[in-house]
Amino acid sequence: MEKILRIDMGAEGGPAAKVEPMGDYAGLGGRAMTSAVVAKEVPPLCHPLGAENKLIISPGLLAGSAAAISGRISVGCKSPLTGGIKEANSGGQGGQVMARLGYAAIILEGKPADDTLYKVVINKDGVTVSADNSLKGLGNYALIDKVKGEYGEKVACVSIGPAGEMKLSAASVAFTDMEQRPTRHAGRGGVGAVMGSKQVKLIVLDDDGMGMRKPADPEAFKAANKAFAEGLRKHAVTGTGLPTYGTNVLTNVLNEAGALPTHNFKTGRFDGAEKIGGEALAELENSRGGEGSATHGCHRGCVIRCSGTYYDKDGNFVTKQPEYETVWAHGGNCGIDDLDVIAALDRMDDDYGVDTIEMGATIGVAMEAGLAKFGDAEAAIRMVKEVGQGTPLGRILGCGAAVTGQVFGVERVPVVKRQAMPAYDPRGVQGVAVTYATTPMGADHTAGYAVTANILGVGGNVDPLKPEGQVELSRNLQIATAAIDATGFCLFIAFAILDQPETFQAMLDLIGAFTGSPLTGDDVTALGKSILDNERDFNARAGFTAKDDRLPEYFKTEALPPHNVTFQVTDEDLDQVFNW
Amino acid sequence: MEKILRIDMGAEGGPAAKVEPMGDYAGLGGRAMTSAVVAKEVPPLCHPLGAENKLIISPGLLAGSAAAISGRISVGCKSPLTGGIKEANSGGQGGQVMARLGYAAIILEGKPADDTLYKVVINKDGVTVSADNSLKGLGNYALIDKVKGEYGEKVACVSIGPAGEMKLSAASVAFTDMEQRPTRHAGRGGVGAVMGSKQVKLIVLDDDGMGMRKPADPEAFKAANKAFAEGLRKHAVTGTGLPTYGTNVLTNVLNEAGALPTHNFKTGRFDGAEKIGGEALAELENSRGGEGSATHGCHRGCVIRCSGTYYDKDGNFVTKQPEYETVWAHGGNCGIDDLDVIAALDRMDDDYGVDTIEMGATIGVAMEAGLAKFGDAEAAIRMVKEVGQGTPLGRILGCGAAVTGQVFGVERVPVVKRQAMPAYDPRGVQGVAVTYATTPMGADHTAGYAVTANILGVGGNVDPLKPEGQVELSRNLQIATAAIDATGFCLFIAFAILDQPETFQAMLDLIGAFTGSPLTGDDVTALGKSILDNERDFNARAGFTAKDDRLPEYFKTEALPPHNVTFQVTDEDLDQVFNW
Repeated sequence: MEKILRIDMGAEGGPAAKVEPMGDYAGLGGRAMTSAVVAKEVPPLCHPLGAENKLIISPGLLAGSAAAISGRISVGCKSPLTGGIKEANSGGQGGQVMARLGYAAIILEGKPADDTLYKVVINKDGVTVSADNSLKGLGNYALIDKVKGEYGEKVACVSIGPAGEMKLSAASVAFTDMEQRPTRHAGRGGVGAVMGSKQVKLIVLDDDGMGMRKPADPEAFKAANKAFAEGLRKHAVTGTGLPTYGTNVLTNVLNEAGALPTHNFKTGRFDGAEKIGGEALAELENSRGGEGSATHGCHRGCVIRCSGTYYDKDGNFVTKQPEYETVWAHGGNCGIDDLDVIAALDRMDDDYGVDTIEMGATIGVAMEAGLAKFGDAEAAIRMVKEVGQGTPLGRILGCGAAVTGQVFGVERVPVVKRQAMPAYDPRGVQGVAVTYATTPMGADHTAGYAVTANILGVGGNVDPLKPEGQVELSRNLQIATAAIDATGFCLFIAFAILDQPETFQAMLDLIGAFTGSPLTGDDVTALGKSILDNERDFNARAGFTAKDDRLPEYFKTEALPPHNVTFQVTDEDLDQVFNW
Repeated sequence: MEKILRIDMGAEGGPAAKVEPMGDYAGLGGRAMTSAVVAKEVPPLCHPLGAENKLIISPGLLAGSAAAISGRISVGCKSPLTGGIKEANSGGQGGQVMARLGYAAIILEGKPADDTLYKVVINKDGVTVSADNSLKGLGNYALIDKVKGEYGEKVACVSIGPAGEMKLSAASVAFTDMEQRPTRHAGRGGVGAVMGSKQVKLIVLDDDGMGMRKPADPEAFKAANKAFAEGLRKHAVTGTGLPTYGTNVLTNVLNEAGALPTHNFKTGRFDGAEKIGGEALAELENSRGGEGSATHGCHRGCVIRCSGTYYDKDGNFVTKQPEYETVWAHGGNCGIDDLDVIAALDRMDDDYGVDTIEMGATIGVAMEAGLAKFGDAEAAIRMVKEVGQGTPLGRILGCGAAVTGQVFGVERVPVVKRQAMPAYDPRGVQGVAVTYATTPMGADHTAGYAVTANILGVGGNVDPLKPEGQVELSRNLQIATAAIDATGFCLFIAFAILDQPETFQAMLDLIGAFTGSPLTGDDVTALGKSILDNERDFNARAGFTAKDDRLPEYFKTEALPPHNVTFQVTDEDLDQVFNW
């Protein structure tokens, strides 16, 4: 990770790749890198699909090393969904492989003069950018099948589906997993549309001949890594809950808490929750004779392994084990209680290359508009299919909940900064609602996952239904998360490092041993703050104000059953989140 | 105009009408009234289609009197198109009739609990609000035919078409003209969607038994009115140009100036301009044996009479003489050079109840997206038809250029604050571009019509292609316009009052004689500023900043043929427009 690859897609005579030293970006990775480049290089008022926007792909600081669970990768740009800065984060093999190739960032900039589609191949010998219109319109699965034939089964891929090519605002960037399937996505904020606007369909990352990245202090690194992994294994969430049931362990938990957004955020309990929760999912997967649930990491080096494989009743692969957010989005939020339907929708989302959260929230809005009844699984499948086909309805839906709400005249649209809320009703988990409202990303649970102390009793306890303590909770988590998103560590390490001081110390030691510069908790805080400062500065220059740090009004006036509570945190308190 | 009618559409037990004294709003009319009520009563972060938004309809201060050309009426709300404050202004009979009924404002507030559609009937005996689902889905023309049968041929109507019922963001509020046709529209900013969200299909205004409003000083009023009308008649634009050719006299003028936005603002000259300009339109209308062009006012009391009637080749009524903005929007901007097609589109827009400017700009964007070729008249007709039908494509288009651009991934979208630009390319008429950028309304020529000094040599001369003097020009016009929009006077009086000091004085005398309080030029300036202050204050509280007072970036980088000029006014200068 000692260099940056910059590809000018609009260069005269065709795309031009150039390898640069780190320069101003030395020492940055992941979200710290993507947000720094966007803040420094992208004009804040540019059109998100224009030549002046840039797409930055950056592995975390420790990616490509032997550090446990450090393979997350960040994709950043000005978002076509929110109009603000965006970092969308993905698992999969991309982070590790790209880091071993030595690139701290790939920056796609400019825009081709015609509509030629390109692929980029990066290996130990260098970078090739070539026109390949034969890829036009391919779903991510067909695309990766084609790649396998040409580049073998070991390369990692970064790609867009038809949604990205159509520049739909909910389009994702796909990353292949350990089985070389395009199941991992930088989903949020339409990063795939920006890759589509650069007309890059595919980036093939081939680390053949490249070694693992070496720590500065191998002995200390090894010891810290061991302690860190042990810490993850001994915590109830990362050691038992997630490995056993996957992220979908949360369905029954959130339903029990009365905070599972159901029927487009109308109630907090879904009658069919038990049928689609993690326990039912594990049982179904096991009964179908696959590898069983939660046996997979999404990338090599994962020690939590919260994923799995979803087979149909005849034993055919459908998709990776659907994540909680997906099960919620296409399940409870749309009133659908059939795991096979949810898995089919997940597969379609991955194939077309769209964010499952945005899609599920959007279908909820479309159902509220009367396009289908809640619970109508066939209609949901038909709608997502239209996204892939690019029909007018499909394009509306593929542009997300805010556009769909506007086009169909719906008032109850659960978005902040035009990005759809994820799987926690803001009235039932008020800490995560503070994050939804204030993160520079638009509604995003991962930006400050207050579900920890609100619901899971991790990192303390803060009553989820009351305003007290939520701002401080969200602030601390947003700072910590920004820093974690720079390291390549999976956010799920948060459970263990919040509860176990020795695991937090092991993480600090691990990073310090890798870079050769000892790290303190204060350094982590400073890093997190600097990233958020960069992001908020960009958004301010793009015209965002405190008025954008608000939930839609109806969450303050419409009480959520079963607890019949409204969102209680005041605007004045929201404005204190970044007051450091 | 001594009272306000407030109708709570969400009252328990059904809509409740209440007549109130003027209170805080004493002395206000038109835009001064609508913007004051929005700024004071509408929560700036509310959903535009929600119960908290309000629709305010207000005649100008002099409406219903014998003052010449004083029948304009304002419709205000928080805009579903821009998210900011909105005042859309219309001709037609509504202003005069409503003023004679004594109402300075009708305020529709709240929202019915179910989907019942209502009509409101106002006459000398009072106000009736009644459910009438038989009106559902009617076009404005069929609706008004029904009204004629029930209420006779003398009432004035305020109504929405299917677009308003569907709450599309480009939906207009229609006002009937002197022939009781729904040809006059408060078009901009989706005011019809807000009326639709209140579920009011129709307001019937019956002034039978009510007299003309009386001036405080009848003698002075009569003298001033005579001088004022004479001033209008003697000015070349209001006395000759507009009466002879209608507003469409501008097509050849703007084309000659190289500022007629053509093919979605790609060039400033349209090959087919001559075929659709005012001269050709007049010749065609005359040849078809109608009343001839420009024989009509849009309301009783007009002394300019810039309108006319468009008949088809068999002598059947099609629509009112299409305005310049409509001829441009559906003509040059879409590459269509056939007046019959343009008239048919105008008729459809009026019938469905959508803004012709937004629709034309939107079809231009759709054509740029490849949905049809520029110049494909059949495709344009098909697209507008889909708006009326409410197909998914129709709903996209009916939500305007910004949504259409997002859904189809188009970068060149000519909007400010998400509202489409009208018929003057901002690079070719840089003064009006300053207005587009900075008016609280979103791109709107009527908010500060710098075409006067930039192109027409009215009120001075300012080079349209250079930045110098544009900010001052736009500032002064925005202030004067806001004041005029409060009086009920048609904005076209500006030509005469800018050039003829005695006509400006006559206008002051006329207002002063009507109200009984003498008026100075400074008073007019103060009124205009106070309206703009209200509007900007609302927008600031809704989250707007200086970053919203900008043109899309491409107008600064893409040169406009034939003069090959970009927009030259700096951001710093734009920020000085309201610096008083």
